[in-house]
Amino acid sequence: MNPRIKWLRNQLESLKLDGMIVSNPANVKYLTGLDEEGTLVLAPKENIFITDGRYIESVNHHLTIDDEIVVFNMHEMSKYDYEGIFMISENVGFEEGYVTYEQYKKYLQQYQVNLVETEGLIESQRIVKDVDEVKNIQIACNITDQAFEYIKTFIKEGMTEKEVAFELERYMVTHGADGLAFETIVAFTENASKPHAVPSDRKLKVGDLIQFDFGAKYHGYCSDFSRVIFAGEMKPEYKQSYDFVLESQSKLADTLKDGASIKLAIKDRETEYKLRNIPVLHAFGHGVGLDIHEKPFLRSNTESIIKENAIIAIEPGVYSPGEYGIRIEDTFIVTKNGSVPLTHASKDYTVIKL
Amino acid sequence: MNPRIKWLRNQLESLKLDGMIVSNPANVKYLTGLDEEGTLVLAPKENIFITDGRYIESVNHHLTIDDEIVVFNMHEMSKYDYEGIFMISENVGFEEGYVTYEQYKKYLQQYQVNLVETEGLIESQRIVKDVDEVKNIQIACNITDQAFEYIKTFIKEGMTEKEVAFELERYMVTHGADGLAFETIVAFTENASKPHAVPSDRKLKVGDLIQFDFGAKYHGYCSDFSRVIFAGEMKPEYKQSYDFVLESQSKLADTLKDGASIKLAIKDRETEYKLRNIPVLHAFGHGVGLDIHEKPFLRSNTESIIKENAIIAIEPGVYSPGEYGIRIEDTFIVTKNGSVPLTHASKDYTVIKL
Repeated sequence: MNPRIKWLRNQLESLKLDGMIVSNPANVKYLTGLDEEGTLVLAPKENIFITDGRYIESVNHHLTIDDEIVVFNMHEMSKYDYEGIFMISENVGFEEGYVTYEQYKKYLQQYQVNLVETEGLIESQRIVKDVDEVKNIQIACNITDQAFEYIKTFIKEGMTEKEVAFELERYMVTHGADGLAFETIVAFTENASKPHAVPSDRKLKVGDLIQFDFGAKYHGYCSDFSRVIFAGEMKPEYKQSYDFVLESQSKLADTLKDGASIKLAIKDRETEYKLRNIPVLHAFGHGVGLDIHEKPFLRSNTESIIKENAIIAIEPGVYSPGEYGIRIEDTFIVTKNGSVPLTHASKDYTVIKL
Repeated sequence: MNPRIKWLRNQLESLKLDGMIVSNPANVKYLTGLDEEGTLVLAPKENIFITDGRYIESVNHHLTIDDEIVVFNMHEMSKYDYEGIFMISENVGFEEGYVTYEQYKKYLQQYQVNLVETEGLIESQRIVKDVDEVKNIQIACNITDQAFEYIKTFIKEGMTEKEVAFELERYMVTHGADGLAFETIVAFTENASKPHAVPSDRKLKVGDLIQFDFGAKYHGYCSDFSRVIFAGEMKPEYKQSYDFVLESQSKLADTLKDGASIKLAIKDRETEYKLRNIPVLHAFGHGVGLDIHEKPFLRSNTESIIKENAIIAIEPGVYSPGEYGIRIEDTFIVTKNGSVPLTHASKDYTVIKL
């Protein structure tokens, strides 16, 4: 049996659970390596992956005998097959943060057990990355850095946000990425005032500020990266915000080291924002891994401490509605001395020629 | 108030519900036109959209006074604000097929009401499209057809599945699509035996079969389309499967007319597959609209009849594990006389020169 499933079985035992239904695809991938849709069921006697006809062939291709996972086709399972899985069980864990209320009721009926909330058990374990996970994220970060260097040479006056975003995506996918970590944001000046801007047909003009927010996926692992650069010239009114955002990021990276309280680190930043009368529109960051947004969330209501080898994106921003926005973000690895960036692109004022 | 929200308020009244919490983004978009993340709450006294700081600016930009929707920032709402919304209410609808068990419990606590399952009320209403919805889907289908014509001229020997998929996506996004309806599938010969193949670095050779499955989005509405073409030559062993798939699609399109039983139409096809000893690996199709897969699902356990102006993708397939697969799919509109395709690309045997 693979060590992650073994770990989970030990956890279930100490929680006095007879098994667990794992439905969240990122958790299934973490435990099994499988990308295919399906549900992993850890039952007293065996590990079962329940999928359907579309995926049977590739699941069987990926699993080896050492995985000790039996594959079932859901369309060939009877009421009795389901009931048999937890025949002698009472309490079985499920993922209350992923499973819909409808699915919860269906599980109750199918498995005939008491379903117990597992409170992000696997998500919490995923926070600290192992060597291979760090390697994958580092590669995703390298692809991101290269794409950013490339795009600075590609941009010309009159190009639309959509064109620039698409070229970034094309570059990443043809330079080693499995896919995109999320939909690329490219926003010019006034469009950058929305943290979740969608690329539009707005054309680039001299004097524009260009906000990027993008990431690559490598072997299922994500990178997350934001920069602001300037087209032809940098208007002096952007400097103060740019410096403030950069300083916020740098202070957070220094504070967020092994054992630090997330809550305290974020409260300090929020106080600083408040002093300057700058609204806080979103979290200061989040974990990055198989999901682009995962635990830990860098918010003032997060109770946990941060640990060595957690991977986090730190992304402070300043937004002036209808005018502009500036957000700077890197993917960091947490160490004993602070957070160290895995994305390395320059954060100097960058003015590109058009 | 807009007519769709009015319709929903009438439905709630007849279901004896005092309001509804709408959480599914496609339903929020359908009712309000909003793309932004948030929850639409129909309360006795007002319609409320609860979002966060990232979206306040664009939500306020999109809504007009005629929408009669009040916008709240969730981070500025107290316990009492939530309790006040349904102060005098008892039974409030929620979307049990979208809301997680955790969120359900949070709603219970926040709103202090009895939450009632609404059983896909809005999803069922979305099945039959109005004139504007059909227009949007037709445009998405036109972009898809054009992309397919273009890609046939682009493909050369030695190209990878990834390169071809990416070029298709680039074409769609730069020729009018807002985005992709889903991740493009391009699969050569043996890779096509998996219905959900992910484009790989496999290079195209003479004699390959090329499976496409892709779609565009226009104003939020999707198209869905699959074809198989042949590189340099068509091996005779593919003909029988190709003809069978095409015939299956054509028979389904003839049968699925206004008032037809979905169950019976699909059972006929399943019988035909069984007679020829061909396994059925997935549904024969699905509704297409704001979601790429929506009601009605073309399965033998779907109890509803199909109605005029429903938009459906019909996509029979035949799969020979490790060898090849053939799936043909068009987006259709249901009429009184049968289903009429909105995608028009040729379904003749197509051999491209490399």
